[in-house]
Amino acid sequence: MHRATPTIPVLAALLAALLVATHAPRLRADEGMWTLDNLPLARLKERYGFTPTPDWIEHLQKASVSFGGGSGAFVSANGLVLTNHHVALGQLQKVSTPDHDYVRDGFFARTGAEEMKCPDLELRVLISTANVTDQVRHAVDPKATGAAQTAQRRAATAAIEKESSQSTGLQSRVVELYKGGEYWLYRYRKYTDVRLVMAPEQSIAFFGGDPDNFSYPRHDLDFAFFRIYDKGEPVHPDFWFHWNAAGPSDSELVFVSGNPGQTNRQLTVSQLEFQRDTQRAIRIAAQEHRLAALRAYAARGPEQSRRALDRIFGLENNLKRERAFLEVLRDPAVMEAKRKDEEALRARVAKDAKLAALYGNAWDHIAAAEREQARRFREYSYRDVDRGARLVTIANDIVRLTTEVEKPNEQRFQEYRDSNLESLRFQLFSKAPVFPDLDAVTLETQLADALAALGPKDPWVKLALGDRTPAQVAEDLTAHTRLTDVAFRQELVTGGSQAVAASDDPLIVWARKLDPSYRELRAWHEDAITSVESLEGARIAGARFALDGKSVYPDATGTLRLSYGRVAGYDQLLTRVPWKTTFLGLYDRAKSFDNQPPFAIPDRVAAARPKLDLDTPLDFVTTDDIIGGNSGSPVLNRKLEYVGLIFDGNTQSFAWNFAYDDQQARAVAVHSAAILEALKNIYGMDALASELTQAPPRP
Amino acid sequence: MHRATPTIPVLAALLAALLVATHAPRLRADEGMWTLDNLPLARLKERYGFTPTPDWIEHLQKASVSFGGGSGAFVSANGLVLTNHHVALGQLQKVSTPDHDYVRDGFFARTGAEEMKCPDLELRVLISTANVTDQVRHAVDPKATGAAQTAQRRAATAAIEKESSQSTGLQSRVVELYKGGEYWLYRYRKYTDVRLVMAPEQSIAFFGGDPDNFSYPRHDLDFAFFRIYDKGEPVHPDFWFHWNAAGPSDSELVFVSGNPGQTNRQLTVSQLEFQRDTQRAIRIAAQEHRLAALRAYAARGPEQSRRALDRIFGLENNLKRERAFLEVLRDPAVMEAKRKDEEALRARVAKDAKLAALYGNAWDHIAAAEREQARRFREYSYRDVDRGARLVTIANDIVRLTTEVEKPNEQRFQEYRDSNLESLRFQLFSKAPVFPDLDAVTLETQLADALAALGPKDPWVKLALGDRTPAQVAEDLTAHTRLTDVAFRQELVTGGSQAVAASDDPLIVWARKLDPSYRELRAWHEDAITSVESLEGARIAGARFALDGKSVYPDATGTLRLSYGRVAGYDQLLTRVPWKTTFLGLYDRAKSFDNQPPFAIPDRVAAARPKLDLDTPLDFVTTDDIIGGNSGSPVLNRKLEYVGLIFDGNTQSFAWNFAYDDQQARAVAVHSAAILEALKNIYGMDALASELTQAPPRP
Repeated sequence: MHRATPTIPVLAALLAALLVATHAPRLRADEGMWTLDNLPLARLKERYGFTPTPDWIEHLQKASVSFGGGSGAFVSANGLVLTNHHVALGQLQKVSTPDHDYVRDGFFARTGAEEMKCPDLELRVLISTANVTDQVRHAVDPKATGAAQTAQRRAATAAIEKESSQSTGLQSRVVELYKGGEYWLYRYRKYTDVRLVMAPEQSIAFFGGDPDNFSYPRHDLDFAFFRIYDKGEPVHPDFWFHWNAAGPSDSELVFVSGNPGQTNRQLTVSQLEFQRDTQRAIRIAAQEHRLAALRAYAARGPEQSRRALDRIFGLENNLKRERAFLEVLRDPAVMEAKRKDEEALRARVAKDAKLAALYGNAWDHIAAAEREQARRFREYSYRDVDRGARLVTIANDIVRLTTEVEKPNEQRFQEYRDSNLESLRFQLFSKAPVFPDLDAVTLETQLADALAALGPKDPWVKLALGDRTPAQVAEDLTAHTRLTDVAFRQELVTGGSQAVAASDDPLIVWARKLDPSYRELRAWHEDAITSVESLEGARIAGARFALDGKSVYPDATGTLRLSYGRVAGYDQLLTRVPWKTTFLGLYDRAKSFDNQPPFAIPDRVAAARPKLDLDTPLDFVTTDDIIGGNSGSPVLNRKLEYVGLIFDGNTQSFAWNFAYDDQQARAVAVHSAAILEALKNIYGMDALASELTQAPPRP
Repeated sequence: MHRATPTIPVLAALLAALLVATHAPRLRADEGMWTLDNLPLARLKERYGFTPTPDWIEHLQKASVSFGGGSGAFVSANGLVLTNHHVALGQLQKVSTPDHDYVRDGFFARTGAEEMKCPDLELRVLISTANVTDQVRHAVDPKATGAAQTAQRRAATAAIEKESSQSTGLQSRVVELYKGGEYWLYRYRKYTDVRLVMAPEQSIAFFGGDPDNFSYPRHDLDFAFFRIYDKGEPVHPDFWFHWNAAGPSDSELVFVSGNPGQTNRQLTVSQLEFQRDTQRAIRIAAQEHRLAALRAYAARGPEQSRRALDRIFGLENNLKRERAFLEVLRDPAVMEAKRKDEEALRARVAKDAKLAALYGNAWDHIAAAEREQARRFREYSYRDVDRGARLVTIANDIVRLTTEVEKPNEQRFQEYRDSNLESLRFQLFSKAPVFPDLDAVTLETQLADALAALGPKDPWVKLALGDRTPAQVAEDLTAHTRLTDVAFRQELVTGGSQAVAASDDPLIVWARKLDPSYRELRAWHEDAITSVESLEGARIAGARFALDGKSVYPDATGTLRLSYGRVAGYDQLLTRVPWKTTFLGLYDRAKSFDNQPPFAIPDRVAAARPKLDLDTPLDFVTTDDIIGGNSGSPVLNRKLEYVGLIFDGNTQSFAWNFAYDDQQARAVAVHSAAILEALKNIYGMDALASELTQAPPRP
């Protein structure tokens, strides 16, 4: 729908005002997504008089649960895990059927027997971390070419991962922090028997829909409960967060733990310019096209609408964010401020002959890589049909997996390394339903985009389409492939590259045909772009460490981080925004829009109004530094009690992708009292409420 | 308090985007504050399928009531008048005492006998209008000097006013429209026996205080009822608006009648630049200084707080607006757009030799006047102590009135012409309390500002201060004057200029001493500035009329206008703002701020919550074109039923001072259902509610 756009200049202007060139990195207020090995102890003590103990840190780490692209936490001794409804949405959709729409109607298991197994949800808990920077560095010959260094580094990290997973039985991943400044080994305990316990109706979890998304004041009950099982019994985690039913108060210090996905705060100006001038506009156009196609598909009927819902939701969410990011990048003042910051850092490096020799030209090397990236980015982007249609992803995975596993572990693409195979197979062989007609719509728009952008003479386009139209190809491939059948997938994977080469499944044939082009472009991108960004990013990080020590946090990497901040309202549009909303505000907003979607409340919530304490806090905001991936993060008080559930940032927090400030930007959470009130007085889930508040002692 | 400022660039940017140079005046959507003789009939028919009849227009005109700086309307056959609480605030404060604080506690007359007479409230109803442009033009010799033309025009308008008031008994004023393009005679019936009927507590009328002022969503019950009496009995007006208890619905066509005070839409670029570079910053600084002093005064104790309240309120209100206006003017894009518009008009004039000869240099003449105005504006502004301390205003009025009335009517300052004397005396001899200590604070800041801005050697400063400090002078004059005594004022006025010349009252002596300087500056300003603006503005209006006919409305002039528009929410900060709020939202906002002022609700309102239908609409927004002075205006449906009460514009409507647009800017009104619900279920004012809804037939 039509949206007013003039808000973004506000946050861009705001951001620009804050990005003043400084001679040393000065953190703002509650800034930072901190790794647990390097918490900002001095700042925490100075601002809040608080010092976390090693026990506190271990508790926080091991009660936090990773949902892949999202976050969550243990909230009972019996393996109960709380996250956002929108993190659970994919699973809710996968367990729904035409007869049982758990997305629309909610899901309520009133006994353990009613808890429903998720088809392909894998949860992880971070068990330990170790700095392996030296090990990785020693394996790399700094005099070798860039590509050789990258291969050496990959071999080293693959070996570290493999050795670790073999010796500990834990999923092991090497994480690059500080844009290559450090390498850390993260070890996870993995859980694959995860069952759905309770989720409210999507219309209350996502009340306000796309308009209210990334907005505040907010009135959402965006929560869902899972339970982790092991050998058919609920697990008993060593650590979980006790429920605080009163929730936080205004100005209180609160912590957020979770897995922020990606920030762009330490990118160079040339990297930001590449995003601004090339990357983001292409992404936005492709997503807009796909969204329009999915909406048309959903309009065909209620069952199509149900099938497409989570993809539409995801695209709307992404588009709102991507458009905002592009607006921020297009503000000349923002880029000017970033430029000044970079110039200040480079000037400090240039002043010291040793630093200058070691790091002085890193920025220029990255700028050259960005020029190269811009040169081929259209091809790289439009020839990628990996993300989108589920069946295409399955076909590509099967073609690549069977080829890659025949190589030595350290030479494989990262996602096919031994340490990742178990998770990959879990996804690949998931019994979650696949909808060929839905996939056809997605694949068709991707092919149509490629045709339009690259032209009919492009070799990839010729290979992908032959003499047919995008619609014919997409329709044909998705309708005739047998990959909807999990047994057929298993058969191919078991048969290995020979079976794949011999297969006449049309989608496998098609994926095989396009694989060389994919490999060529991926090699180009890894060697010419990401390797350079990583190598040179590590040099810039080296310069920063040399000048300022490790006083900063790394850009987000999808791994566990701790943020801290305070509960706080803010000033906006010449008035004040409160630190919390209440159930009164929920019913008000529904009524203010005459209960029209997306501001219509579900029947259960409407009916419960007389029973509810309407003064109960519903959502609230904090200055904790978060970004996408923090969805489902617990908000914790000093005692590590559960006081809230992060589910969004406000409009102004879009700027946090590029720099933190706490003037207006806020993280948005569901209040712990609201979840309890809803469980008891809307949904009659008293046992679940009791499990939260009367957690039995640790077994 | 600290306020976020980045909102204003939004509205400025928005405005700039809308101010594109056009070759003919193109009105936007629901634009316009129309005089009743020139309603936009074609647009109303085209957009809304509505054509007002002459009866409809007469009804609208005669049921509308002017409150001087505000607006109101008859809402019963028994002379009941409804306006805003903040329009009534001055009277509420004047009838309050240390023992009865009607501002804080509200005022509730449950019988006619309890209705309380206002000390100096004069209401007016517009009875007739006549175009006297030709009469005024004929009296002016276009070959005479500017000053001579101005004198001739003044003499003509004074004669018209005097003749009219003598022949009709109605208050008669000549109004300059279209910056001098037309002159109209407006005749009013005046009412001076006005009694207070009911006003809620200020904390609910002005819920959200200064932060929420000029903001939306809003939750105010900003209403107050008066009743007009004549010869001790309620008047029975010929026209009043019947109450519509259901109120408006989304998208409905609604009208607003009232007295918008001033807009700057047709000003030339040089006039806007003068405001931007000179005028507004000086005004803002003076008001900030005075506000700080009044806050310090109010902090002395509850009684001082009560006394200063309406002045603090007025200054906060003004400052929020003035700062916003200045931000808009300082946006280069806004001024550039205005410049393009002006250039386009001038180019059209230049194309036609006849028009070029008649009007071509009008803009240059105004620009010269603005340069002259800027040259002396500091003196002009800082030597003016007329507005502020009530006792000083009284002294100045007495000194000037007694001098002026001895001159022929048409040579007097406008406010001392015969046609205005009755109203002036009504104000001057008001028994409303005067607080010398409060006046001392105001006068002191004015003198201190003058001293700081003009320096101790300025002749006026020397005269005003002598050898003493601003504090000493202010303290001495206000403490020792006898002008607090109404009888003493009457004695002086009756004694005329001789009595004033002989008076040894210190404030009269002081006012006498400064009067020549005042007269010199006023003459300079009228001759060199306003006369030129008026003469040349008339020529620009002439050019517009010649090119486009009378297809536009005049800038606001504080006289009766009709606006039209639709009830409509809008998009803001990437989400949607609803067209209405509800009582649920009121209690939510109070609770969200933990019931802390200015978000605390009064006890009566808190106690009434269980009795109220919380879904009742509270406030709503429309696209009707309004500005300061429209406070208290009725919102009317097609049938001229009363559906709402204008009390504010939202933040984005600040831009309406310079240009109308309806993307985000909105007028804000109290919903008719909210007033009824409050009367019945909060205040138990059932008889008043019945009077509204069961209006007896006209007598």
